[in-house]
Amino acid sequence: MRVNPATSSDGVSEQLFTLGEIPGVLWTPDGAAGTRALVLMGHGGGQHKKAPDIVDRARRFVAECGYAVVAVDVPGHGDRPTDERYDRIATENQARVAAGAEPAPLIAGFQALVARQTVPEWQAVLDAVQGLPHVGAGPVGYWGVSLGCGLGVPFVAAEPRVRAAVLGLGGALATAEVAARITVPVEFLLQWDDERVPRAQGLALFDALGSAEKTLHANTGGHGEMPAFELDSTLRFFARHLG
Amino acid sequence: MRVNPATSSDGVSEQLFTLGEIPGVLWTPDGAAGTRALVLMGHGGGQHKKAPDIVDRARRFVAECGYAVVAVDVPGHGDRPTDERYDRIATENQARVAAGAEPAPLIAGFQALVARQTVPEWQAVLDAVQGLPHVGAGPVGYWGVSLGCGLGVPFVAAEPRVRAAVLGLGGALATAEVAARITVPVEFLLQWDDERVPRAQGLALFDALGSAEKTLHANTGGHGEMPAFELDSTLRFFARHLG
Repeated sequence: MRVNPATSSDGVSEQLFTLGEIPGVLWTPDGAAGTRALVLMGHGGGQHKKAPDIVDRARRFVAECGYAVVAVDVPGHGDRPTDERYDRIATENQARVAAGAEPAPLIAGFQALVARQTVPEWQAVLDAVQGLPHVGAGPVGYWGVSLGCGLGVPFVAAEPRVRAAVLGLGGALATAEVAARITVPVEFLLQWDDERVPRAQGLALFDALGSAEKTLHANTGGHGEMPAFELDSTLRFFARHLG
Repeated sequence: MRVNPATSSDGVSEQLFTLGEIPGVLWTPDGAAGTRALVLMGHGGGQHKKAPDIVDRARRFVAECGYAVVAVDVPGHGDRPTDERYDRIATENQARVAAGAEPAPLIAGFQALVARQTVPEWQAVLDAVQGLPHVGAGPVGYWGVSLGCGLGVPFVAAEPRVRAAVLGLGGALATAEVAARITVPVEFLLQWDDERVPRAQGLALFDALGSAEKTLHANTGGHGEMPAFELDSTLRFFARHLG
């Protein structure tokens, strides 16, 4: 892992890094020393590791909870090169939708394909970041909605270091069987009028989660209209489960 | 209204009162003077105005937010006499359920009947309590689940002083049309494995609410197993909307 020098503002240090081909960013409290909880954040489709909503949440997790937060670019996103195979499939899917196909199963199938690559990538990122002395091997949380949910469900199911997860804005089509293997506490975010994820599919994904403790937060509004107070709730959820 | 002398513990004053035939209890901060927000709480079926979960919530609303809180006995509950008409209907309903009838429509019909009495009773309670100098005519919130939801939906729909409501553990059978007239922010609590309210009916009631801002909180577990952290969320919800 190659780690760039830190920049700092308002008590939060930010370090860009690359791990093999994966560009990432790590946020920690200024002057952090020793082991702490780590939150891995998965960004949305067409977004990247430093999208404004990722940065806003990351800075609050660091400033208010003292956590480390890491985000990396999904293949084909941010500072990563175009992936011809994924691009070809995405183009084919767009053509199918234009011809009248339902988008949800196509999106779910595509996310399941990409997850085969991102699950081991994100596990390698955890290995590397937890090897840093100011992060260490503390409890791990996961936060990701939309694409970050489609890729997050298989990641959380596969990775025993994850102790709690915030997921949402995703449906059950490709992930219900995988979701049943998740047993850690989950806060699941759903937009009641989501124009991209049918309501019944979002409810079915929440239902499919194997966790004994899971909470659904459903709010009025469309896919991109999650209310700001849900971030306050996320902070309290992680504080309960990651310390 | 006849108001008994206050007793006090941990900074919270409690005053029993009667308004006509209605026995009630008012909690306020010790030494309160002047206008403040008022939360009216509706208790559950078979419970009463000082049931432990009502008292616990009321004391936190007073101690942490400085609100006044009022709860009264529903007809046939607590310190009120047995109501022969309600008792007869309840006995008939029990016989129908024993003979194989679905309980949910019977419960909903019964609650709609009782609400014809409790809506004007609770409006009179607001009038009287807001006339006290240490309560005054501030913003009003409503909290009620189960029976407190069945009676609360028509009350919140009818009473313009209510600015925000916590409802839940109830279904849409008798109340969907009334719920559509509610326009204030609502936090709606649903137990995902509720053995008394079918999940689809709880979701339908949330869907029916006319509020532009409404949030569904669904948790694993049965009717009586709402997690303790939902009270923390309720406090923040009222703080956002009642100040």
